[in-house]
Amino acid sequence: MRCIETAAVGMLAAALTWPAAADYLVKEVGSFHIGGRTATLSGLAVKEVVFTPGMPAIKVDPNGEFAVEQMYVQFVKLAQPKARLPILLWHGGGLTGVTWESKPDGKPGWQQFFLEAGYDVYVSDAVERGRASWARYPEVFQGEPLFRTKKEAWELFRIGPSYEVGGKREAFEGQQFPIDAFDQFMKQGVARWVTTDAAIQSAYDALVQKVCPCIVVTHSQGGNFGFNAALNAPDKIKALVSIEPSGAPDLSKVDVGKVKGTPHLIVWGDFRDKVPVWQRIQVNPGKYGDALRAAGGKADVFDLPAMGVKGNTHMLMMDRNSDEVAKLVSDWIAKQGLVN
Amino acid sequence: MRCIETAAVGMLAAALTWPAAADYLVKEVGSFHIGGRTATLSGLAVKEVVFTPGMPAIKVDPNGEFAVEQMYVQFVKLAQPKARLPILLWHGGGLTGVTWESKPDGKPGWQQFFLEAGYDVYVSDAVERGRASWARYPEVFQGEPLFRTKKEAWELFRIGPSYEVGGKREAFEGQQFPIDAFDQFMKQGVARWVTTDAAIQSAYDALVQKVCPCIVVTHSQGGNFGFNAALNAPDKIKALVSIEPSGAPDLSKVDVGKVKGTPHLIVWGDFRDKVPVWQRIQVNPGKYGDALRAAGGKADVFDLPAMGVKGNTHMLMMDRNSDEVAKLVSDWIAKQGLVN
Repeated sequence: MRCIETAAVGMLAAALTWPAAADYLVKEVGSFHIGGRTATLSGLAVKEVVFTPGMPAIKVDPNGEFAVEQMYVQFVKLAQPKARLPILLWHGGGLTGVTWESKPDGKPGWQQFFLEAGYDVYVSDAVERGRASWARYPEVFQGEPLFRTKKEAWELFRIGPSYEVGGKREAFEGQQFPIDAFDQFMKQGVARWVTTDAAIQSAYDALVQKVCPCIVVTHSQGGNFGFNAALNAPDKIKALVSIEPSGAPDLSKVDVGKVKGTPHLIVWGDFRDKVPVWQRIQVNPGKYGDALRAAGGKADVFDLPAMGVKGNTHMLMMDRNSDEVAKLVSDWIAKQGLVN
Repeated sequence: MRCIETAAVGMLAAALTWPAAADYLVKEVGSFHIGGRTATLSGLAVKEVVFTPGMPAIKVDPNGEFAVEQMYVQFVKLAQPKARLPILLWHGGGLTGVTWESKPDGKPGWQQFFLEAGYDVYVSDAVERGRASWARYPEVFQGEPLFRTKKEAWELFRIGPSYEVGGKREAFEGQQFPIDAFDQFMKQGVARWVTTDAAIQSAYDALVQKVCPCIVVTHSQGGNFGFNAALNAPDKIKALVSIEPSGAPDLSKVDVGKVKGTPHLIVWGDFRDKVPVWQRIQVNPGKYGDALRAAGGKADVFDLPAMGVKGNTHMLMMDRNSDEVAKLVSDWIAKQGLVN
């Protein structure tokens, strides 16, 4: 038997155990834009603009060709992913992929959770949001951009029942959002249009064609895009997790049977009974799930408070117990036989 | 002597060599917003808006509090960085941190280069760009947003002498930009204001206070912000690399001697003689470097074509030889004694 000194083996073993359990070996961090088209404008007035103080003015001709309606996608590819499929995280309205990154309180979010769990993770900004960029209006986009106020976010996202501008912010008892980080959260907000759904869907569909088969996790406005993306490419989306979807496809216009091979999971947080609009919002996603089950498909529902997980707001991936909810989602994905 | 079978040692050795040379062990991918303020609007009309087709209309009251003028910062923290200091990559005008991510041709950019080199890397979006978000105008921002046309980018960024809308795109002979990926590059463009410099500088200064000591690499419009950030925190920015800076502080208004302890490097690409505006743009950064040297500081200049590195455009971090230029910058940083 050939031998080696155990001291040397000890050094090798030490080197092997050097990474902390949560560290992960990365092959590439990168990004790309996908989808979109060239818009050509003409007839607009030329301007002279000083871009940097003290520098000469530069003539700016706003007429010409512009890239519009593309989407931004950032990926972290692991050297040795444990999961067989990448996971795509799609944000909700008035927000960007930052939803999934570090939480407003600075703690790790779901992007980091799924990287540590061994997934390649794709975080995107939908058309006109964040790094996807927006386009001139009314020349390219129709309608006007909307900006969410702090009061609207506080109340609509079910952090609490009332928000007084410049005054008291009342939170629901037992709610899980880190309210000391609420103002920090609001820095994540971006303008949105409500006239760009077709362009957004088109870009998501192109993304699915590029990087899937995959698992898709959506939030809020992303829900409807995710349901449609699965209908448009049922062979590509192997599981769909809809976190508090704000809408679902019209059942009279789609064949839900097309996605009976794609397991669906819908996740709802707490306090829906306390904010009336949510009782209406959850109706269509509920009917969509019912129809999918009736068609022989799988549509599980995690009603978190009914499962004993209390206090989650609409922004549950930022709540204090976000890892607990991520673990429930992660375990559900594993049960679909899609991980190893 | 205690022994172990060589087969087992072989397995350990194989495990140790398993990562490809370029892979890197990551502790955390995350992000935060920094800087900014709350703007309060009043007197604007309430609107009813359908956010998701088929869903009930929601009343949108645009009056209230908004987070404005914050900056977005994304980081990749290594488990075992080889470099002693993190590197911060600051983009130019009409663009975002995407400048430093994958190149438009899909190949790795400078973010990946410096991660592989062992740096913690921070990539940011300046105020009103990308994930930093913009704010209502004219209520919050003054002036109008500007969008860059494809023609302006082609000519101003020195890819070629002429661009005909919908027609021929003439490139400089020997230029290094991957012109097949030019339309892809244009998807990275975002709107910009020219009235937000004070807010942008303030956010950069806050970033420096939060994450430095560090090395800062700027591009184009970022150049002026970088020079000022070093003047504002000379103890925090240990080296400053300005890639094609589009401006520099007014020497009658600043004390350049404050940064004589911070080595500066200014890098220029090719074809500056062929696009007249660049002969003017490079004057102030040149004078700034001269003044810094006269004050006893260090201000090196890499005139790439004079060094035999030919064909670089203004977007040299996306050029085919981007790694070659990154290596020159990386070697210069190492020579300042800042890496190990």
